[in-house]
Amino acid sequence: MTITLYELTGSDPARPFSPHCWKTVLSLAHKGLDFERSPVPFTGVPEVENRLGKIVPVLRDGDHVVSDSFDIALYLEKAYPDRPTLFGGEGGVSLARFIEAWAATQIHMTIGGRLLLDIHAMLEPEDQAYFRQSREARFGKPLEEVVEASAERVKSFAAKLDPLRLMLKRQPFIGGENPLFADYIVFGAFQWARVCSAEQLLEPDDPVADWFERCLDLHGAAGRSVAAAA
Amino acid sequence: MTITLYELTGSDPARPFSPHCWKTVLSLAHKGLDFERSPVPFTGVPEVENRLGKIVPVLRDGDHVVSDSFDIALYLEKAYPDRPTLFGGEGGVSLARFIEAWAATQIHMTIGGRLLLDIHAMLEPEDQAYFRQSREARFGKPLEEVVEASAERVKSFAAKLDPLRLMLKRQPFIGGENPLFADYIVFGAFQWARVCSAEQLLEPDDPVADWFERCLDLHGAAGRSVAAAA
Repeated sequence: MTITLYELTGSDPARPFSPHCWKTVLSLAHKGLDFERSPVPFTGVPEVENRLGKIVPVLRDGDHVVSDSFDIALYLEKAYPDRPTLFGGEGGVSLARFIEAWAATQIHMTIGGRLLLDIHAMLEPEDQAYFRQSREARFGKPLEEVVEASAERVKSFAAKLDPLRLMLKRQPFIGGENPLFADYIVFGAFQWARVCSAEQLLEPDDPVADWFERCLDLHGAAGRSVAAAA
Repeated sequence: MTITLYELTGSDPARPFSPHCWKTVLSLAHKGLDFERSPVPFTGVPEVENRLGKIVPVLRDGDHVVSDSFDIALYLEKAYPDRPTLFGGEGGVSLARFIEAWAATQIHMTIGGRLLLDIHAMLEPEDQAYFRQSREARFGKPLEEVVEASAERVKSFAAKLDPLRLMLKRQPFIGGENPLFADYIVFGAFQWARVCSAEQLLEPDDPVADWFERCLDLHGAAGRSVAAAA
């Protein structure tokens, strides 16, 4: 039975960049499941699987179609209980919702604006038009101004990672001795930045950078299948 | 078999204020365990249980003596596996370490300085002398200046709670539908502020304030056994 991951890409299908799709790539690799990657441009997202998806990632596993990276992880945990756990129990599921909210408010909202023009440059013309229009409506100003305004916010980025940095003094992964989906939630955000932008967000000797390198090494270095932006 | 909790207090043993001790009070209540509270002033901490403790809380349960609120929760989880779980599995333990680091860096470090003089005022003279000396050494300036300087930081406090606020749109507790030790980690910090200071840190309509009220109601309203500072 083939598993298909519908994954957001730009002009180059070999450079997927969506943070949420990367969470699912690592989730599937964590479970040791083979899967096919089906690239989807921004303007193709509404059409995925007869409009079942609406957002990517979308996973088809036999008759099951699931969207949203967290829901996909929950599905995989239930469908493949004999494979390595993504959550480590019910408590791990609930607390991963806090990690998800932390990553959304502290990482995505801090660096997301900075990446807008980088992402725009990776897209085909019709996706560029959609992307510019939808993001400019969301931010209420031209992409160029959002990127400019985000420079200050990016300066505060390292400090926002203090919780992760302090935790890493005790254990190598958010999941403890080994990674869990909670790590992939945060990994996805850093991988998004790594694939889209050459801007260095962390000092090389930052323990958070060490953690990210460890995540890139996981599961046959799945995260390194795409080179960093140059 | 009697369980004894050695708990930090000031002049009034009926107004325990330590955030870490409150985590343990809620942990014991969560497990439905009866316990005696043994008040310990700052200068008495090194003497607890023949110097086994060094920090409070210290828990004696029969022959077992455990210190540190997280280690106590782990001990209770192992010693009383048939009682309600504090972690919800191994993943819940590991991810609670992230919550602990988040609370330490985002809550304790933001509001802790603000509470110094309030705490000082709650202590006996010999504890006041110890407290002033040790904290002024830690902060590198008089308590009064630390409190003054912390006013700006406290203004950023509500924003620092964005991850919790966003998560609360999905579930009523960090533990999901019901609280886990992860909730008590964060509760302890808010309870510390509630018992020590009358300063209002959150708007009444803040979802985080609602969550804190729910925590105060837990386990026979254990947290309300001490009135808020007036």
